[in-house]
Amino acid sequence: MTQSAQQMFDSHRQTLEQAVEAIATRTFWTPYPESMRKYSEDAVKAAPANFEALLNQPFTLNSVGSTKQVGGEISPYGFELGINYEQPNPDELIAAMQVAMRDWREAGAQARVGVCLEILSRLNAMSPEIAQAVMHTSGQGPLMAFQAGGPHAQDRGLEAVAYAWQAMAQIPATAQWVKPQGKHDPIVMGKRFHIVPRGISLVVACSTFPTWNTYPGLFASLATGNPVMLKPHPGAILPVAITTRVAQEVLEEAGFDPCLVSLVPDTADAPLTKTLALEPAVKLIDFTGSNAFGDWLIENATQAQVFAEKAGINTVIIDSLDNLKAVTANLAFSLSLYSGQMCTTPQAIYVPKSGIATADGHVSFDDVAAALAKAVQAFLSDNDRACTVLGALQSVDTQARIDECRGLGEIVLDSESRKHAQYSDARIHTPLILKVDAAQKAAYSEERFGPISFIVATDSTAHSIELAREVIREKGAITLGAYTTDEAVADQLEELAMDVAAPLSLNLDGGIFVNQSAAFSDFHATGGNPAANASLCNQAFVASRFVVVQSRRHGQSN
Amino acid sequence: MTQSAQQMFDSHRQTLEQAVEAIATRTFWTPYPESMRKYSEDAVKAAPANFEALLNQPFTLNSVGSTKQVGGEISPYGFELGINYEQPNPDELIAAMQVAMRDWREAGAQARVGVCLEILSRLNAMSPEIAQAVMHTSGQGPLMAFQAGGPHAQDRGLEAVAYAWQAMAQIPATAQWVKPQGKHDPIVMGKRFHIVPRGISLVVACSTFPTWNTYPGLFASLATGNPVMLKPHPGAILPVAITTRVAQEVLEEAGFDPCLVSLVPDTADAPLTKTLALEPAVKLIDFTGSNAFGDWLIENATQAQVFAEKAGINTVIIDSLDNLKAVTANLAFSLSLYSGQMCTTPQAIYVPKSGIATADGHVSFDDVAAALAKAVQAFLSDNDRACTVLGALQSVDTQARIDECRGLGEIVLDSESRKHAQYSDARIHTPLILKVDAAQKAAYSEERFGPISFIVATDSTAHSIELAREVIREKGAITLGAYTTDEAVADQLEELAMDVAAPLSLNLDGGIFVNQSAAFSDFHATGGNPAANASLCNQAFVASRFVVVQSRRHGQSN
Repeated sequence: MTQSAQQMFDSHRQTLEQAVEAIATRTFWTPYPESMRKYSEDAVKAAPANFEALLNQPFTLNSVGSTKQVGGEISPYGFELGINYEQPNPDELIAAMQVAMRDWREAGAQARVGVCLEILSRLNAMSPEIAQAVMHTSGQGPLMAFQAGGPHAQDRGLEAVAYAWQAMAQIPATAQWVKPQGKHDPIVMGKRFHIVPRGISLVVACSTFPTWNTYPGLFASLATGNPVMLKPHPGAILPVAITTRVAQEVLEEAGFDPCLVSLVPDTADAPLTKTLALEPAVKLIDFTGSNAFGDWLIENATQAQVFAEKAGINTVIIDSLDNLKAVTANLAFSLSLYSGQMCTTPQAIYVPKSGIATADGHVSFDDVAAALAKAVQAFLSDNDRACTVLGALQSVDTQARIDECRGLGEIVLDSESRKHAQYSDARIHTPLILKVDAAQKAAYSEERFGPISFIVATDSTAHSIELAREVIREKGAITLGAYTTDEAVADQLEELAMDVAAPLSLNLDGGIFVNQSAAFSDFHATGGNPAANASLCNQAFVASRFVVVQSRRHGQSN
Repeated sequence: MTQSAQQMFDSHRQTLEQAVEAIATRTFWTPYPESMRKYSEDAVKAAPANFEALLNQPFTLNSVGSTKQVGGEISPYGFELGINYEQPNPDELIAAMQVAMRDWREAGAQARVGVCLEILSRLNAMSPEIAQAVMHTSGQGPLMAFQAGGPHAQDRGLEAVAYAWQAMAQIPATAQWVKPQGKHDPIVMGKRFHIVPRGISLVVACSTFPTWNTYPGLFASLATGNPVMLKPHPGAILPVAITTRVAQEVLEEAGFDPCLVSLVPDTADAPLTKTLALEPAVKLIDFTGSNAFGDWLIENATQAQVFAEKAGINTVIIDSLDNLKAVTANLAFSLSLYSGQMCTTPQAIYVPKSGIATADGHVSFDDVAAALAKAVQAFLSDNDRACTVLGALQSVDTQARIDECRGLGEIVLDSESRKHAQYSDARIHTPLILKVDAAQKAAYSEERFGPISFIVATDSTAHSIELAREVIREKGAITLGAYTTDEAVADQLEELAMDVAAPLSLNLDGGIFVNQSAAFSDFHATGGNPAANASLCNQAFVASRFVVVQSRRHGQSN
C-alpha cells in the first residue's frame, strides 16, 4: 500500500466505521450535510462562476489513446454547454486498465477503500459546483441538483464502499487449518486468501441522475479492485467528467494509474455502449435507463454481471385516510418534484370508484381526483417556487410525451408550460393528471416517463391491490405508496409489497415523500421485480464484484 | 413460525453458530465426522440391505401432478437399479410451489434455517445408506461415496446455510429512522424489512457427485425462502431422491408443504432441464456439468441467476521439489482417486523439458514422467485397494474417451481395466498418462474428463507459468497445484493463481491432495475463470437468492 492511500484510509476510518454501523442498523445517518449552509460560503458563491468557466472549451482528463473529441450537451435551461471531452480508444483503454488493475488489486482493501473515501470527501466539498453541472445537464432544479447530485449521491457512494468493505473484511488474510488425525499428529495447512477483482467494470450513467445513479456502481466496483469505465449519457457528461477528474487526481496522488477511473463519452449518433458492454474483458455492468436497453444488456452481455435499474409502474393505492388535504399536498409534491422525472415518481394512483373514507367523511372518486389537482395547482401557484421544484424536462422526448398522453384519459389537471425568470428557454412543464377506468390498462400500465400520472378508478381496494399485483409483477415498480386507516388493509398492502417486491411507503402525509429514498436506511429498488435486478445498496450489489483466490501449503501460514 | 421449526432451530443453534464462526476463521471444523466408526454400527451394517430393499420398485415421494414414471439407472458396478420415480407435471408443480412459497417466506429465517439444519442432521445419520446410493449411481468407491457423498456433502450444505443465515441476519427486522430538523421536531419513521425469496430455484445435479454438488444450491435457496426443484442426472437419481424424501419429511413435520423440495427426474431421451430452466418462474439455477450446457444456461436462462460449475483444465506446475517419491505418490493418489472423475483432478502437468532440481539432485523430464507412472503403478498394485480408490467409470462415454485419447501423445502409463472382486461387470480403469510437447496444445488444453492426464514438456518454469496462464484464462480451472522450493517462484505462482483466479495448492506431498476441498475453509472454485461462475460457498453464492422488501410509515416501527 502506498503511504498516501494508508493516510487516506486512516483519516476517513471513523466515517467508514459509522457507515458500516448505519447499514446494519438502518437508522438515519450521513456525513454529507444536505443543507448548503453547511458548506464553505466561498465554494457556494464561486460555484456558478466555476461552472461558467468550464463552458465552451475542452474538459481535460487523463484519457488513454484518445483520438476524437465528443460533446454537444445542451442545458435543459436552454443553452449549449459547448464542452468537448476526449473519447479514449476502447481497446487501448482496456489494455491499460488490465495492467493498472494488478497494482490496484495488490494494494489491498484498505488502500482501495482509503482512495474511495478520499474521492467522496473531495466530491462532497465540490457539491456546489457539481450541483451546477447536474442542474444544467439533467434539468433538475437548483436545490435538488445540490442535494441529489451532491450529498445524497455521495451517501449512496459511501454506502457502496461500506458494503464492499464489510464484504471484503469477512475474508481473513490467512488461516491455520489443523485437522486432527486421531493418535497421529494433526495435519497443519497454512492458507492465504486474496480478494481478486472480476475485471473491468462498465458504469452506464443516465441523463436524469448522472451522479446519484452512478456512484453506487462506481464505488462498489472500485473498492473491490475493478477498474471503472464511466460511460455518461451524451446529454449529461459534465457531472460524470468532474467525478472522473476528482477520482483520477486522488488515484494519482495515492500512486495509482489514474486510468483506473476513466470517462468514455460517446454521442447519440455514434453510441459506444453496446460495443463496450460486449467486450470480453468487461465483467461488471451497472446500468440505469430504459427497459429495452437494460433487457438487451441482460440478454446479450452474458459475460458480465449486469446490475440494471430500469423502469416500472410506480404505484399509489388509496383506500382510506385521515386528512385529504395533507395527503394530496404530499402527493402533489411527489408528482411535481423534478417534473416526474424520478425513477420513483408515482404514475398509477388507484382509487375505488365508490370513493374513500376520510376522517371528515366519505369523499367521492371525482372529489379525490379534484383534490389532488387542486393541491398540485396550489403547490405550483408561485411561479418561482414552481420552477425550482419542477426543474426542466431533460429531453424533448419527455416534452413530446406530455402531448402524446393527453388523449389517454380524461384530463383532471392539464400540463402547462412555465417561464423561468432567469432562463427564458427552459423546458418547464407542470404535471398532467388523467382519470381512467381500471379497464384502460394500456394507458396506465405502460411507463409514461415525465410529469404524467393516472388516477385509476377501481371496483374496490381489493381490486386496486389485485391490479397493482398484476401490473407490478409484469412491469415492475421501484416505489409503492399506499393510504389506509385500516390495519387489516395495511397488512394486505404489506403482503402485496412482498409479493411484488416493491418497497411500501404507508400513509405519507408530511415531510417525507414516496419518491425519496434515504441512503443507509432505505433500500432503493429491491431487485426482485422487472423494474430493477439489483438494489442500491445491499450485499448482493457488492458480493459478486470480486472473487476469493486462496493458496495453501503444509505448515504455518506465512 | 410453527413450533417444531422453532424447536429444530433451537436444537441445532450451536451447530449453526459454530458454522458461522468457521466460515469466518476458515479453520478446520465439521459437525459431521468423516470416519464411519463414528456412526451407528447398526446403520452401517444395515446400509447394504436398506439399499437393496429400494431396488426394483417405485421410489415414492410427494410428487405434484405426476403422470409418468421415469428411471433406468444402471450401477457403474454393473447392474440395473430398477427403480422408478414419479415425474411431476412442471406447470402444476410450479403453481403449487408458488403457493407454498408464501408460508415458507412468512415463516422467517429462523424457521427456514431450523428446517434446513434438521434435514442435514437426518441426512448425516443416513450417511451409510446414502453412500450405497452414491456408489451405485456415480461409481465412486465405497469410502469416497461415504465421505464425499455423506459428511463432506453435508458440510457443504451446512456451509451454505451458514452463509445464508449470516446474510439474512444482516437485515434488521425493524428500524427507527430519526432525521433531525434543526429547531423543529425530528422526522420519525418506523421501518420494517422483510426477506423475500427470488422465486423458484432449479438445482441441476450431476452424475458424479449427486449430493456434494447439489447440497450447496439446495440449502442456499431453501434457507433464503425459495422452493427447490431438484433435477437429478438421469444416471444418478437415487441419492437426490433420498435427499428429497428426507427434506419432505422434515418440511411436513414442521408444518410446511413438502412440495417446497421436489424431485423432477427426467430421462436422457426426454430431457426436461432446458424447459425448466426457461420457465419465467425459475429465478435461480444451480448447475454442475458440461461447459456447453452451463454456457447455454447462462446465455439463455437470462430470467434467472445462474450458478454454474463447469469444467476446466486443472493444472499442476512442477518447478523443483525436495522429495520426488513423496510428490509422485501424492500426485498418483490425485490422478487415481475416482478414476480422475473429480472436477478437481489435475489434467495438465507442466514440467520443464530440461528437468527439475530435487533435494537428491537434478531429475530429467523423462525421469519425472517415469517416476509418476511408477508411483501410480505402485499405488494401484493391490487390486482391491485399486478398485476401492478408482471406483468405477460413471459413464460409457468416459470409458470410450480413454481409447480416443491414447493417440494424443506418447504413452507414459497406459490405462488398464481391472476386475472388481464382488462386481465382475464394474467399469474400472486405471489412469492413462501421456507425454506431450508444449506445442501440442490441442491435446492437453481440451478437457478430457476421466482418468486421462498429460505431462507437458515446457521450455522452463516461466514457460509453464505462461502456458498455464493462457490455458486457464481461456478454459478455466478449478484447481492449480504447483511444486517449487524457490520462494521467488512461489511468489510467481501465487501471482498466477490470482491472475487466473484458481486456488493454489503448493508443494502437497503428504496426506492432503490437490483435488480435495474442505468445507468451511477451502473455497471450491473461485467463480473468476471459465470453469465456474460461482464459488462454493461464499457471500455471492447466497446474497442474490433473496431480496429485501421494506415498508415505512411515520412514527414508531411496529
